[in-house]
Amino acid sequence: GFATVDNQRGARTGTSEIIYGAGKTKEQIAGIVTSMLEACQRRVLVTRLDGEKAAGVSELLAAGGIAMEYDPVARLGMVGDAKEPDGLGTVLVVCAGTSDLPVAEEAARTLEYLGNRVDRAYDVGVAGIHRLLACERRIRDARVIVAVAGMEGALASVVAGLASCPVIAVPTSVGYGASLGGVAALLAMLNSCANGVSVVNIDNGFGAAYQASLINHMK
Amino acid sequence: GFATVDNQRGARTGTSEIIYGAGKTKEQIAGIVTSMLEACQRRVLVTRLDGEKAAGVSELLAAGGIAMEYDPVARLGMVGDAKEPDGLGTVLVVCAGTSDLPVAEEAARTLEYLGNRVDRAYDVGVAGIHRLLACERRIRDARVIVAVAGMEGALASVVAGLASCPVIAVPTSVGYGASLGGVAALLAMLNSCANGVSVVNIDNGFGAAYQASLINHMK
Amino acid sequence: GFATVDNQRGARTGTSEIIYGAGKTKEQIAGIVTSMLEACQRRVLVTRLDGEKAAGVSELLAAGGIAMEYDPVARLGMVGDAKEPDGLGTVLVVCAGTSDLPVAEEAARTLEYLGNRVDRAYDVGVAGIHRLLACERRIRDARVIVAVAGMEGALASVVAGLASCPVIAVPTSVGYGASLGGVAALLAMLNSCANGVSVVNIDNGFGAAYQASLINHMK
Amino acid sequence: GFATVDNQRGARTGTSEIIYGAGKTKEQIAGIVTSMLEACQRRVLVTRLDGEKAAGVSELLAAGGIAMEYDPVARLGMVGDAKEPDGLGTVLVVCAGTSDLPVAEEAARTLEYLGNRVDRAYDVGVAGIHRLLACERRIRDARVIVAVAGMEGALASVVAGLASCPVIAVPTSVGYGASLGGVAALLAMLNSCANGVSVVNIDNGFGAAYQASLINHMK
Amino acid sequence: GFATVDNQRGARTGTSEIIYGAGKTKEQIAGIVTSMLEACQRRVLVTRLDGEKAAGVSELLAAGGIAMEYDPVARLGMVGDAKEPDGLGTVLVVCAGTSDLPVAEEAARTLEYLGNRVDRAYDVGVAGIHRLLACERRIRDARVIVAVAGMEGALASVVAGLASCPVIAVPTSVGYGASLGGVAALLAMLNSCANGVSVVNIDNGFGAAYQASLINHMK
Amino acid sequence: GFATVDNQRGARTGTSEIIYGAGKTKEQIAGIVTSMLEACQRRVLVTRLDGEKAAGVSELLAAGGIAMEYDPVARLGMVGDAKEPDGLGTVLVVCAGTSDLPVAEEAARTLEYLGNRVDRAYDVGVAGIHRLLACERRIRDARVIVAVAGMEGALASVVAGLASCPVIAVPTSVGYGASLGGVAALLAMLNSCANGVSVVNIDNGFGAAYQASLINHMK
Amino acid sequence: GFATVDNQRGARTGTSEIIYGAGKTKEQIAGIVTSMLEACQRRVLVTRLDGEKAAGVSELLAAGGIAMEYDPVARLGMVGDAKEPDGLGTVLVVCAGTSDLPVAEEAARTLEYLGNRVDRAYDVGVAGIHRLLACERRIRDARVIVAVAGMEGALASVVAGLASCPVIAVPTSVGYGASLGGVAALLAMLNSCANGVSVVNIDNGFGAAYQASLINHMK
Amino acid sequence: GFATVDNQRGARTGTSEIIYGAGKTKEQIAGIVTSMLEACQRRVLVTRLDGEKAAGVSELLAAGGIAMEYDPVARLGMVGDAKEPDGLGTVLVVCAGTSDLPVAEEAARTLEYLGNRVDRAYDVGVAGIHRLLACERRIRDARVIVAVAGMEGALASVVAGLASCPVIAVPTSVGYGASLGGVAALLAMLNSCANGVSVVNIDNGFGAAYQASLINHMK
Ligand SMILES: Nc1ncnc2c1ncn2[C@@H]1O[C@H](COP(=O)(O)O)[C@@H](O)[C@H]1O
Ligand SMILES: Nc1ncnc2c1ncn2[C@@H]1O[C@H](COP(=O)(O)O)[C@@H](O)[C@H]1O
Ligand SMILES: Nc1ncnc2c1ncn2[C@@H]1O[C@H](COP(=O)(O)O)[C@@H](O)[C@H]1O
Ligand SMILES: Nc1ncnc2c1ncn2[C@@H]1O[C@H](COP(=O)(O)O)[C@@H](O)[C@H]1O
Ligand SMILES: [Mg+2]
Ligand SMILES: [Mg+2]
Ligand SMILES: [Mg+2]
Ligand SMILES: [Mg+2]
Ligand SMILES: [Mg+2]
Ligand SMILES: [Mg+2]
Ligand SMILES: [Mg+2]
Ligand SMILES: [Mg+2]
Repeated sequence: GFATVDNQRGARTGTSEIIYGAGKTKEQIAGIVTSMLEACQRRVLVTRLDGEKAAGVSELLAAGGIAMEYDPVARLGMVGDAKEPDGLGTVLVVCAGTSDLPVAEEAARTLEYLGNRVDRAYDVGVAGIHRLLACERRIRDARVIVAVAGMEGALASVVAGLASCPVIAVPTSVGYGASLGGVAALLAMLNSCANGVSVVNIDNGFGAAYQASLINHMK
Repeated sequence: GFATVDNQRGARTGTSEIIYGAGKTKEQIAGIVTSMLEACQRRVLVTRLDGEKAAGVSELLAAGGIAMEYDPVARLGMVGDAKEPDGLGTVLVVCAGTSDLPVAEEAARTLEYLGNRVDRAYDVGVAGIHRLLACERRIRDARVIVAVAGMEGALASVVAGLASCPVIAVPTSVGYGASLGGVAALLAMLNSCANGVSVVNIDNGFGAAYQASLINHMK
Repeated sequence: GFATVDNQRGARTGTSEIIYGAGKTKEQIAGIVTSMLEACQRRVLVTRLDGEKAAGVSELLAAGGIAMEYDPVARLGMVGDAKEPDGLGTVLVVCAGTSDLPVAEEAARTLEYLGNRVDRAYDVGVAGIHRLLACERRIRDARVIVAVAGMEGALASVVAGLASCPVIAVPTSVGYGASLGGVAALLAMLNSCANGVSVVNIDNGFGAAYQASLINHMK
Repeated sequence: GFATVDNQRGARTGTSEIIYGAGKTKEQIAGIVTSMLEACQRRVLVTRLDGEKAAGVSELLAAGGIAMEYDPVARLGMVGDAKEPDGLGTVLVVCAGTSDLPVAEEAARTLEYLGNRVDRAYDVGVAGIHRLLACERRIRDARVIVAVAGMEGALASVVAGLASCPVIAVPTSVGYGASLGGVAALLAMLNSCANGVSVVNIDNGFGAAYQASLINHMK
Repeated sequence: GFATVDNQRGARTGTSEIIYGAGKTKEQIAGIVTSMLEACQRRVLVTRLDGEKAAGVSELLAAGGIAMEYDPVARLGMVGDAKEPDGLGTVLVVCAGTSDLPVAEEAARTLEYLGNRVDRAYDVGVAGIHRLLACERRIRDARVIVAVAGMEGALASVVAGLASCPVIAVPTSVGYGASLGGVAALLAMLNSCANGVSVVNIDNGFGAAYQASLINHMK
Repeated sequence: GFATVDNQRGARTGTSEIIYGAGKTKEQIAGIVTSMLEACQRRVLVTRLDGEKAAGVSELLAAGGIAMEYDPVARLGMVGDAKEPDGLGTVLVVCAGTSDLPVAEEAARTLEYLGNRVDRAYDVGVAGIHRLLACERRIRDARVIVAVAGMEGALASVVAGLASCPVIAVPTSVGYGASLGGVAALLAMLNSCANGVSVVNIDNGFGAAYQASLINHMK
Repeated sequence: GFATVDNQRGARTGTSEIIYGAGKTKEQIAGIVTSMLEACQRRVLVTRLDGEKAAGVSELLAAGGIAMEYDPVARLGMVGDAKEPDGLGTVLVVCAGTSDLPVAEEAARTLEYLGNRVDRAYDVGVAGIHRLLACERRIRDARVIVAVAGMEGALASVVAGLASCPVIAVPTSVGYGASLGGVAALLAMLNSCANGVSVVNIDNGFGAAYQASLINHMK
Repeated sequence: GFATVDNQRGARTGTSEIIYGAGKTKEQIAGIVTSMLEACQRRVLVTRLDGEKAAGVSELLAAGGIAMEYDPVARLGMVGDAKEPDGLGTVLVVCAGTSDLPVAEEAARTLEYLGNRVDRAYDVGVAGIHRLLACERRIRDARVIVAVAGMEGALASVVAGLASCPVIAVPTSVGYGASLGGVAALLAMLNSCANGVSVVNIDNGFGAAYQASLINHMK
């Protein structure tokens, strides 16, 4: 009774329902996954799933004969067969620092799950601009770019200035003090003086990936 | 000396430079437009140009034989020949209320300037959901959607739930009190529980249009 | 000495005093409950009571021969006989997602405790608007509606647009990043473009239920 | 084309559409009023209409033979016959200080427009509690209360402690400095330790009146 | 080397130095206490000392033959002989709810430590105004009042309206959601429409007591 | 009908009612003044009265034979005979910079109006600490101090460290950018590491003076 | 009486007093300038002086035979002989866009006034990174850099990554919506992931110049 | 793959890369240190390294024959030979209270690591101004000053008023309530009315030290 699953959405939007794992019990997650598979969906993604809860969900699903792959960096649970990459081009995921990795990987793994080829350029923050310029070709070759950065979030602007494709910016909560839990990066990205940038919620690697995948699958 | 114009950007990013009109004098704007045309750009767009300054710029440009079209609702100045619509599909601009019109038109006119066919669905806010559902077909047919709303900014989530294409949300500063100059709508849109939504700055109809156009021109 | 109990309030406002459990010790709570029963109140409700403290309070009360029922989802402790539903109509509690359950249940259980018939429509968030439209009849039949949602909080506006009765909106702290602990949903609800909406504090399912019950008991 | 009027809403929600006057031109407002009357609505209310724009709208409507009454304190424009008071009881509007008058009157006049008998108790802020206690009987006799206050917004809590009916609180932007344009009063009201209080947007006398009227018309 | 003790301050301001316990190690606190006693101060107060650290400090001091009294509700450590009450009148400490007790007791115990007679009126929040009015005589008899309240912080305004002496208001972090950790109460108190109110930091019972004691010792 | 004047307050709190001039019309102010005088109050103070409105009020009062003195720096209107200084000591008003003058004068003139001897030490901000140290004797001799500062608001802490009497701090809105309209100074003052400081609202010279006067009149 | 001029500061800190022009009357400014010259200072700088007030000050000073130079872009008034550039190296002032000019010029002119050689690189925002890279040599050759940018404020990070000297960042209030009056740029700069960056207040070109000059004059 | 180490930076900016330890695993940190040493850097500094992680990193590095010194107060890990002090003068680190020690030591130890002589003046907050004035000579003798303070952050202004060298201010998160995690001190420092102050992020002792070292090494 606690969930009203929207099984038509897969058909309508081109992807199956995705489960937001935070704030749900392992029993609720396993229950929703099971009912979605019974409704004939082939793949389910669970986001924001911490390690302990993932173990609990896996155990519950295993009892019903269902296997769930878990990525502890990206904190994603994936049920069902991998999808063949059927996107039109490559999605580039860039991130500013090593500390942004969990969010960058949430984006990259979600992109792969949704059928995209992914190019990763990590730890190329703007303070060492030559590291980023070394990626100029990959930036120009991408069909969509997901730009992940915390602290001052300047990466999105510089990348967008070099790119001719849409850039989806993901602020992260990396930082301290005046980073205000990612709000500094969020504001910076919203104020980007470069054209072609839009923004998703702080740490929302999944959301950026989802939209990037939509764009990469347009024919 | 006051401006370092980036004339290569047209070539590099697929569009010519756009001038942010706020905070510049009429002399500065006319000067930048002129130097861009001299550098062989065919079209220039000036955003955030209020009526009085527009008149001043027009006059200065006219002295040099350059005509500028001005749209007082969208507060846009446009120099050069109109571009033929060469986008792949239609971009739908939806807005919640009549008071959102200036931002919606900034988006729509910019889209047309950048070579897109535009479908306008205005004043279809979520408080009268049947008005929005009446647009369901147009929502499904769009290649990209720009969703413009102030106050609680709920429009983006409902539209994205009905759409299968990317939705670029534009919060507006329409409202009072706890709307905090558009921050309420901005936060709502960033927290959209619908997939496929990304967000630009408050009242930045131009920015949403720019990214929507990039998406609509991908082959 | 630590509490000045207001036993006249039951007579005056039509309900007995309710205890805010957070920030009180188990000894304080058990003491207040006991003195209220001694002052001849028939029922006591303790809100925001976590599981561990509830166990402590139960033990202390049991020593005095008093039984307390505890609901771990709603985090409510209830002492005294159940009240027969004597409200005039049905109160509908709608919530956007499974993660909003604790707040929705705090509202629903409080409503029942205060003598109301409750209809629950859970997990009907606006991103899948057809799930919500499927509840249109129940929305029209309600005498009061409590609308519970986190993230962008858009549910209240859409429900109020479909309803002709008062809607009391409860923002929840569900979400992350720019949800700012529920402030995003709070602001959205305060800016609702739909008529007939008022708002209570973030996660305050109790407060919404209390007012809804007042309305449902007006003759 | 700039407005999608929802004429069914009158039928559905029991009142005709209300026009939010801020951010619309006089031409837009007069146009919407006219089309609503043509769609057979008997009364139209325009809120947030400043004096100068009201004069412009009146002139445009007069040209079409339509008369609009204007209240400069409440900043309301009213078209159509007055409605007979058909609410079940009296709605009490209390306000803390003389400076809150415009918002209190927006509430009171809207309530009368919607068919309610209104009792006004103005300038009874909590710093002189005996002034408020002198209203204790009127507070107990009301069927719904609209409590309007700026600065620290304490009025709502004290009134709700004395009342046994629902209290709808309206924070106002009266004050300076740390009143933060009404945010201080808004937060205070949301945190009311009294039961039975819900809150609307800063300065939204209209919104409180609308919900109060719904409650006062419940049978 | 880590502390530059200001032993002249006792002479200058009429009280010995007070130690802020948070963010210091038990070794640092015991060291500062010892050096202050060696510099011939007769009493030392340690504020914001949690239970565990207090035990550690006590143990270290005991090794040097120094006894420290600890109050776990007020989280205060007190070294040295009690001071005889030598203030001119009585300081009234009022608080709104049982959850405000720790802050109210921090004020009351500090006041006693600084030589004041204290009258405590607890749990007299404004939602049950008659409980507060029952204290009217004690309010009028006080020489200074410390008013402690969280949530909407309305207590200070009502008390100041009844009093003819200075009221020092202490907002507390009691509450949740839109209480923003006490910021709501702080803003309310700063905006008090009653005269004679000044405010200290959130949860700063000590600071209010200190100033109240200064006032109560003026000849 | 627009005002419920509390004429008993004079008797009760030792001063007559003070009128907050902002947000009231000249007719309202003149009306309240007149009714207060008719109720036998001897003096009336009107705060936050800008020059233009003051002229209007004066004219209206003059028609009734009432004279109002107006101080354009302090923006105060004063009706009635000056009060003889009957406070016990001197109140020192210190301010940090010349731009804080209007607020400092609002305090100083209000203090004089309420019967206090005032010592003014202006433009002694902490950046030139020797200017402030030159006032050390006056600081020690004061019975109460009102410390007025904008920008970083450090003055209150340094003064309180030098004083042995209560310090009432008034943050001002002087500054720009990160001064956030006085919020920076307000927060600094609330966090003063010096003992004996309490704070009033931004720019509220009146409120500080009122409390300082209460303290200075205690016997 | 309104100003306590600190004429020793010139001797002590190596520069004469500087007058903050905002919030002072023209009479106050002229008075302070005059008294400083009488106290034998050779040069006076007045900041934040708008055009109209500058004219008034000039007139007043001229009456006393004193000439003031006024720069309307930088909003600076300068009295006294120009100082010969005696700094050790060159200070580079970079700014992101044409709209940042007033702040950049406030810095540049102040630097010249304080005896520094200035190199200006304007309109080199990060969205067109190659424009900035074209300045790489000038960045390396500077002894100190003042980096001025609004919107997302990314310029400071990129410049600091290329520089080996201190960078003083000045956020500007250029932008709209989520730029929050310069707070977005301020936060970004405080969170710079590049080493060697410190920050001054929003729009405080003067403050950055002052510190840069101190550094450039160290021997 | 997780890190793109910028080994050229050492050459370019005069120091080797510094590792931000927060948000990285011990394996990542040890890996980066190792690769930097392999790239022939002689010294590596790891900041924001808590005790437990430091132990893990030490163990991993020891396995490769690399020793890391760890300072638990400053939370710094240091690899490689100590650098001889080669700065031109002395850098003075002042801090307001004992609770600011961790940040002050982060600055002081980083300064020593980067080759500076350091003078420490701790616990000299402005509430006891004479303690600070006792340091006046050391303040005048410093070549650069790092001023560390939480709460109201006034130290920076007073120190800068006494100094004739650049002051780099570090706000700390010491405090509670309205200190807002250091934001109060940050805002105060940004609004310093003293000349010559610039500011780094809350608790960023490292950042201040880095810039101070650059200044102290300028020839
Ligand atoms: N309304 C707008 N909002 C945000 N960015 C804009 C806007 N108009 C122009 N821009 C961008 O601002 C940059 C030009 O800035 P400027 O050199 O100051 O004219 C270009 O990258 C534009 O694409
Ligand atoms: N003062 C007001 N505050 C909030 N909402 C209002 C106000 N006045 C009208 N509305 C609502 O705004 C909606 C109309 O918006 P619009 O279509 O922009 O005129 C209606 O649902 C009205 O009930
Ligand atoms: N400048 C002021 N700031 C804060 N409160 C004020 C001010 N001036 C008057 N008041 C208080 O506001 C109340 C009067 O409000 P009102 O009835 O609206 O005139 C009285 O209690 C005054 O003492
Ligand atoms: N505590 C710190 N605060 C701010 N920046 C730092 C800190 N420690 C190191 N950094 C900088 O962060 C960058 C390294 O980031 P990362 O590649 O994630 O290790 C370098 O530019 C460092 O100088
Ligand atoms: Mg790195
Ligand atoms: Mg409409
Ligand atoms: Mg769901
Ligand atoms: Mg009044
Ligand atoms: Mg109670
Ligand atoms: Mg001065
Ligand atoms: Mg440009
Ligand atoms: Mg100390």
